[in-house]
Amino acid sequence: MARPKPLSGFPEFLPAGRIVEQRVLDILRETFELHGFASIETRAVETMETLTRKGEITKEVYVVRRLHADEAQPEKDDLGLHFDLTVPFARYVLENAGHLAFPFRRYQVQKVWRGERPQEGRYREFLQADIDIVGQDSLPEHFDVEAPLVMLAALERMHVELGLPQALMHVNNRKLAEGFYRGLGITDTLEVLQRVDKYDKIGAEAVAALLTEELGLSAEVAAKCVALAGICTPDDSFVEQVRALGVQHEMLDEGLAALQAVINEANRRVPGRMVADMKIARGLDYYTGTVYETELVGHEKLGSISSGGRYDSLASDGKTTFPGVGISLGVTRLLGPMITKGQITATRSVPSAVLVAVDAEETRDVAQEVAAALRARRIPCEVAPKADKFGKQIRYADRRGIPFVWFGGLQGQAKDIRSGEQVEADASSWMPPAEDLRPGVSIAG
Amino acid sequence: MARPKPLSGFPEFLPAGRIVEQRVLDILRETFELHGFASIETRAVETMETLTRKGEITKEVYVVRRLHADEAQPEKDDLGLHFDLTVPFARYVLENAGHLAFPFRRYQVQKVWRGERPQEGRYREFLQADIDIVGQDSLPEHFDVEAPLVMLAALERMHVELGLPQALMHVNNRKLAEGFYRGLGITDTLEVLQRVDKYDKIGAEAVAALLTEELGLSAEVAAKCVALAGICTPDDSFVEQVRALGVQHEMLDEGLAALQAVINEANRRVPGRMVADMKIARGLDYYTGTVYETELVGHEKLGSISSGGRYDSLASDGKTTFPGVGISLGVTRLLGPMITKGQITATRSVPSAVLVAVDAEETRDVAQEVAAALRARRIPCEVAPKADKFGKQIRYADRRGIPFVWFGGLQGQAKDIRSGEQVEADASSWMPPAEDLRPGVSIAG
Repeated sequence: MARPKPLSGFPEFLPAGRIVEQRVLDILRETFELHGFASIETRAVETMETLTRKGEITKEVYVVRRLHADEAQPEKDDLGLHFDLTVPFARYVLENAGHLAFPFRRYQVQKVWRGERPQEGRYREFLQADIDIVGQDSLPEHFDVEAPLVMLAALERMHVELGLPQALMHVNNRKLAEGFYRGLGITDTLEVLQRVDKYDKIGAEAVAALLTEELGLSAEVAAKCVALAGICTPDDSFVEQVRALGVQHEMLDEGLAALQAVINEANRRVPGRMVADMKIARGLDYYTGTVYETELVGHEKLGSISSGGRYDSLASDGKTTFPGVGISLGVTRLLGPMITKGQITATRSVPSAVLVAVDAEETRDVAQEVAAALRARRIPCEVAPKADKFGKQIRYADRRGIPFVWFGGLQGQAKDIRSGEQVEADASSWMPPAEDLRPGVSIAG
Repeated sequence: MARPKPLSGFPEFLPAGRIVEQRVLDILRETFELHGFASIETRAVETMETLTRKGEITKEVYVVRRLHADEAQPEKDDLGLHFDLTVPFARYVLENAGHLAFPFRRYQVQKVWRGERPQEGRYREFLQADIDIVGQDSLPEHFDVEAPLVMLAALERMHVELGLPQALMHVNNRKLAEGFYRGLGITDTLEVLQRVDKYDKIGAEAVAALLTEELGLSAEVAAKCVALAGICTPDDSFVEQVRALGVQHEMLDEGLAALQAVINEANRRVPGRMVADMKIARGLDYYTGTVYETELVGHEKLGSISSGGRYDSLASDGKTTFPGVGISLGVTRLLGPMITKGQITATRSVPSAVLVAVDAEETRDVAQEVAAALRARRIPCEVAPKADKFGKQIRYADRRGIPFVWFGGLQGQAKDIRSGEQVEADASSWMPPAEDLRPGVSIAG
């Protein structure tokens, strides 16, 4: 077999990169569980019927078929890989509603797949971490603050513990924009929303041009829409600024009050990490209330690494409706470029804190006993693969970043190969410094 | 959307079942890392060329195509879902050989997919946990003992900590069987091996019949093959029993010595957990030395839950050969039936150890502060979704198996809702009993 080449869009990490990813996943899991979210995993495939319910997304689906499937098999039985974790979760809730306790808080960390055309920076397989809270028939509004604060807590730990950039969440409310447009006499508000969604990419003037040229809005009305989108405040002063535009609508009032509650509560609990931003639209998604996007400060070009919002009807079986609010973190989007470029890496490529040296193949048993004693106290270690000269065994450790080499038996010597310091050590009590017990994460620059 | 039905062969667990699975995965990860294995993940898809290298397995592959892919696209560009973790790992090793340090010890825990026809007990998506040690050009034989002992260590923890049945590993060596068959004058030894592989299913007499009828072996030669397959000893007394069959071959000597070394070392380190079993063949796999299968004691009908062996050439790029030895645990095979039937479950369906009650919506802030104080000391908790009557809030906790309800502020009261005991508690110092901090696992019967 010739040396294989990577497949574009399907990122894979070397072991040190994977250690960074694992640390991030550990932080996510611990944060989610501390907040009472239960883990679920759904199968990788859904029926094409489930995947295509929302129309728009079908172009990106990977279809899955048995190699020797009957070619005449009707297409509606085909399966596709899930392209997000929301559609599978909605299906899971409906399928298992009788066995779940509502409100149901779940987290889900899985790969998703999108059949994008191969191009730079587009992932076709990537890891998402979602949290959602879903109610039966109703779901209190305070969850609109709770869900994003849980994700912010996880992102804050990544900043403090791993040195990742700080996160800033931009929040809006669909009712605010929709009420505002209606107050202006616009009926097809979704069309406006989808154009405002391009504000960050193309700028205010270009959006105004789209609104007048494509939707036939008057210059004055388009200007108001663009003015709304330009409002972004770190506190609830957005309310006054929106009011100053002079538009009146009941739904606008509702949206303003809801967003005000979210931003004030967030500012009370995590000051400075959330702004009210009227240009956040989440254009193609079926949100009905609060919506979230998240930037990394200083890395705004990455786009939103964590987005979500509220659905009045995450799922419905015709009789019962399940409203939900949730937020998703693009783990690969966050880490992939930094890991691939080597901007973030682990201090070693293996879990081992200690390499137990082997004197001679005849005494490998002794080294195994030392390793067993260390492992019994949760010190990751490995035994040298060959009874080479000690210099070669030390190089084995050095090449992997293993900080300590153990010589001798249970009463032996532990050498820190970074400093060269070697001390008498008892395998039943010696401990490496806490920071060496597992690999650290280091960031370039 | 009508209530969806499960897809046959694609198991999904309710939250309590998932907690059991997570506990098993935690044990696997910790055990593997304590032994110095580095985690990697590979993409879910491989090129069809990579997947079909070994021929036999192609009938079970799921092909993956973009929904709107050009129908005229040549089939060799097609992708398929991986059906095991060995083929992707071999590809990963070749692709990244220049960046890996050998011997390379990796573990990999991922879903795999097989396009089986739907039928009872056959999974089409399931979770595997693999460890392999791979060398460049050569790999010392002592790894043939190390790899299975790591898996046995993980299985032993599942037995002790979670109450799963104990494991018994059956070990053989391909050279032993092949040398024996050659010593009998048989040339197509693989044909014999594949029939001996059915020994457990169809019995000794039926295997002998296959050997004489399908392969034209004499009754005497067939009898010797079957006699070999019948040898199974908990120590190295198999050597004498094989010798007593009177067959001579250099490769047989080699296989006997290698298996003797493995069984003696295993008996020294974990007495009673490994037997030498001459009927273990791993018929269709390309092993070249030691082979492993693992039964759960008292649940032999499940078949082998953990199998593996040594490859002289796990991968090769024509110039360099990468020998490897590894073993794979079928996590879904092990847990799926027990979880689905409710024979094993978690003591609660959520991570929360505490529900913080809410007096009135106006004082939800107070409850949030209590929750933050508990989380700061790593106590998983959630705040009641509504300021219902306390009885209703207690029922909320009870339905999820949450053991404690907190009333009042930072200086409040913690009620154990199982015993009814309620104590004064300070949110900055109170701790639940250690065993209540995370969900336990309980086994029926």
